[in-house]
Amino acid sequence: MKIAVFAGDGIGQEVTREAVRVLEAVDLPGLTLFEGDVGGVAYHRHGHPLPAETLDIARASDAVLFGAVGDPTCDNLERHLRPEQAVLGLRAELGLFSNLRPATVFAGLEDMSGLKPELARSIDMLIVRELNGDVYFGDKGMRETPEGEREGWDMMSYSESEVRRIAHSGFQAARKRGSKLCSVDKANVLETSQLWRDVVIEVAAEYPDVTLSHMYVDNAAMQMVKDPGQFDVVLTGNLFGDILSDLASMCVGSIGLLASASLGERTTEFGTFGLYEPIHGSAPDIAGQGIANPMAMILSAAMMLRHSFGNEAQAVRIENAVSAALADGVRGGDLGGDLGTSAIGDAVLARL
Amino acid sequence: MKIAVFAGDGIGQEVTREAVRVLEAVDLPGLTLFEGDVGGVAYHRHGHPLPAETLDIARASDAVLFGAVGDPTCDNLERHLRPEQAVLGLRAELGLFSNLRPATVFAGLEDMSGLKPELARSIDMLIVRELNGDVYFGDKGMRETPEGEREGWDMMSYSESEVRRIAHSGFQAARKRGSKLCSVDKANVLETSQLWRDVVIEVAAEYPDVTLSHMYVDNAAMQMVKDPGQFDVVLTGNLFGDILSDLASMCVGSIGLLASASLGERTTEFGTFGLYEPIHGSAPDIAGQGIANPMAMILSAAMMLRHSFGNEAQAVRIENAVSAALADGVRGGDLGGDLGTSAIGDAVLARL
Ligand SMILES: CC(C)[C@H](C(=O)O)[C@@H](O)C(=O)O
Ligand SMILES: CC(C)[C@H](C(=O)O)[C@@H](O)C(=O)O
Repeated sequence: MKIAVFAGDGIGQEVTREAVRVLEAVDLPGLTLFEGDVGGVAYHRHGHPLPAETLDIARASDAVLFGAVGDPTCDNLERHLRPEQAVLGLRAELGLFSNLRPATVFAGLEDMSGLKPELARSIDMLIVRELNGDVYFGDKGMRETPEGEREGWDMMSYSESEVRRIAHSGFQAARKRGSKLCSVDKANVLETSQLWRDVVIEVAAEYPDVTLSHMYVDNAAMQMVKDPGQFDVVLTGNLFGDILSDLASMCVGSIGLLASASLGERTTEFGTFGLYEPIHGSAPDIAGQGIANPMAMILSAAMMLRHSFGNEAQAVRIENAVSAALADGVRGGDLGGDLGTSAIGDAVLARL
Repeated sequence: MKIAVFAGDGIGQEVTREAVRVLEAVDLPGLTLFEGDVGGVAYHRHGHPLPAETLDIARASDAVLFGAVGDPTCDNLERHLRPEQAVLGLRAELGLFSNLRPATVFAGLEDMSGLKPELARSIDMLIVRELNGDVYFGDKGMRETPEGEREGWDMMSYSESEVRRIAHSGFQAARKRGSKLCSVDKANVLETSQLWRDVVIEVAAEYPDVTLSHMYVDNAAMQMVKDPGQFDVVLTGNLFGDILSDLASMCVGSIGLLASASLGERTTEFGTFGLYEPIHGSAPDIAGQGIANPMAMILSAAMMLRHSFGNEAQAVRIENAVSAALADGVRGGDLGGDLGTSAIGDAVLARL
């Protein structure tokens, strides 16, 4: 079992350390970890946010555990050298087209949400976001208009097969949950969305047991605040998924607890190859202080055991240890407590 | 003073009737109203959601009072015949590039928001959305990939002058409010956003008294739920503005109270030509029952008097009558009460 560990920038380093401690503590025969640099730290050391050696490590592994990238000292670099390019590059190079983001409120933490507690409590959704296409990866550039003005442009598009494979991810996920899939688009304005909607409807024929609905993205953003409990699985493209998945996470409130998986088509002898990361980012404002909550990173490691190593038992064991710690009042600063990164790691380890 | 009145579909008809009663009751010498068909109702009568006669009426007027469009019986029409095309067509044909959407919680109505009351109370922002460019109005279509697959595509772009004029709208609006402007984009991924950001920064030099900040759209969506009170004026492109302005409205809770203005460069002898509409849409589920809340439509008429007719006195008079009615407990079904459309209109009229 080869795991690539890319801690990245800011608190990525600190939280990854705790997740590695947890992985080493559970029973995983043959586990080997390979570290690699990504993001600002990679740029400073190697001149590129996603060095070729890092990509090689990822390709040679069965899964990637990813901390966070984002480094204010890189803000003025050219786009292709900025830390975010590590994320975009890994998604593209590794064919990670399916981003799964569960959003659920942990019992006792309803108060952390900006939403009213009864709304927060109702949240139990999974966002399935396409990650390899859309306006993210189309041609783009700056050009001059006939009037001699600067113009920025980006091509948005989706092809049938791109939509079809993520639609299958969505329907399959819905089958394992509440059997409801809400596909979000802007088909009243965009042809890309019209194709999206057409193909999702075609794929739906293979999943008669799943109830499909469609929602425009502006309405979906409203419904997440008005009645988030209505959503089971939300299926969206790359751009709308970027916005809605962050919105859903914030509706939950405790983003220091939310994990994500990015999966592709490649399978290994253990399961589906994937990249696992907390959704909280590098948080430069609190980096290096030992106060970041490592729970989302630890839960990302659990997701990895489930999806990439088919090890449901150890995944549940880690998740239960985190839940038990929370139930016992273990809280970092993000949840109104005062425990530091390693103290939270200790608390989880003690409950494994 | 020539006002084009386009009531449109669903509850658009009902709420427009009340707004017209209010306009006729206040003292507006020389007021003439011209009615025109838009949306599904126009399609059914004339075969097009935005007939040429309607456009002519708009062009010959000093302002447009717009109800709502949206009609489920048109769902399967070709895109260019659907009701939404009336909105898009009017924006494009009339050069209405600047959409202003104030979002403020009315005193005593904090409970209507899905957010916690203390967060809801803190909301006092104005969204300034560009309305004539972006992926909405670029080339688009369906094509075949080299592999023989269907592909939907839409060109996203902004030119310098398009960004510059909406940036001026934003900075000028900020000057009249809290002098804070937050420009929202996705410059870490999109060239269109990079140009947007570059030009906004250039324009900022003319407004040294306004504090400018930049935020990525995914973060902006989160911040609206986490800490909406941080925003004063939010400046965004057409697509992100569509999502964020609906999100902000829902954070306020009572969308039956929110008005909007869409302004262009054209001026009349009275002020800036503009289109005014409530943000709530045609609400087909409650149409024709006389239960829609007309307050947002009435407040849109007040906005019209302010921006297109420079008549601050009568605008404030209408706004105060609505506030007084709310303070007296006048509530439609959307606010947990049981008053119908015309009863609410009566209540506002009685307090003029
Ligand atoms: C860093 C950025 C390019 C990225 C995205 O927009 O996809 C991030 O926001 C995310 O959601 O993982
Ligand atoms: C009806 C639709 C085309 C429109 C838009 O997307 O602009 C609407 O959502 C709005 O915000 O006015």
